[in-house]
Amino acid sequence: MEEKVKISILCELYGKLLTEKQFEFLDDYYNNDLSLSEIAENNGITRQAVRDNLKKGECKLFEFEEKLGLMEKTILQEEKIAVILSELNKIKDKSSDKQVAKILEHIKSELNCLV
Amino acid sequence: MEEKVKISILCELYGKLLTEKQFEFLDDYYNNDLSLSEIAENNGITRQAVRDNLKKGECKLFEFEEKLGLMEKTILQEEKIAVILSELNKIKDKSSDKQVAKILEHIKSELNCLV
Repeated sequence: MEEKVKISILCELYGKLLTEKQFEFLDDYYNNDLSLSEIAENNGITRQAVRDNLKKGECKLFEFEEKLGLMEKTILQEEKIAVILSELNKIKDKSSDKQVAKILEHIKSELNCLV
Repeated sequence: MEEKVKISILCELYGKLLTEKQFEFLDDYYNNDLSLSEIAENNGITRQAVRDNLKKGECKLFEFEEKLGLMEKTILQEEKIAVILSELNKIKDKSSDKQVAKILEHIKSELNCLV
């Protein structure tokens, strides 16, 4: 996975554990595509200060992932859900029972709310 | 949910974010059923120091839950999985197809690894 995408996901998962400023800078840089200079200007600080703050925030995010592994767990869950959805489709193909079709739809909607 | 059970679950979810000592005291008190006096004696500190350390750890656990909500999410996922398992059983009751039965078993085993 691309580093930028990874940090963006980690930010979503663990952002609330960061300081307000750390989250804001990471969000501006990785999700809102602001440059270091733009963030520096908006906050009245140097580019280097922004860079340091971003680095600290990134380190924290990777530390949280190392400890809690939520990103890895989410990816595994999504893979399992994809397998289950594909298996459900096999049942759908094998059955012409309308009630079974209805149950399958219910299961799919519950599955899609799982992650 | 009983407070003791709640703290035990939170400890499992967020224990790695605590300091080593905080985790050890909480684990000893809530999971291994050691008394304050026993923990105090094992660590060569006062009962009050153990109590303070436990309180700090508990506060942190509740703070993590407030921010990340992993316990609430896990409970909701388990409820949804129970609904899905019950729906899968309905399909099993409606179908005599052996291949469908095999697919259902596969889905169940994937589901049981989800949380």
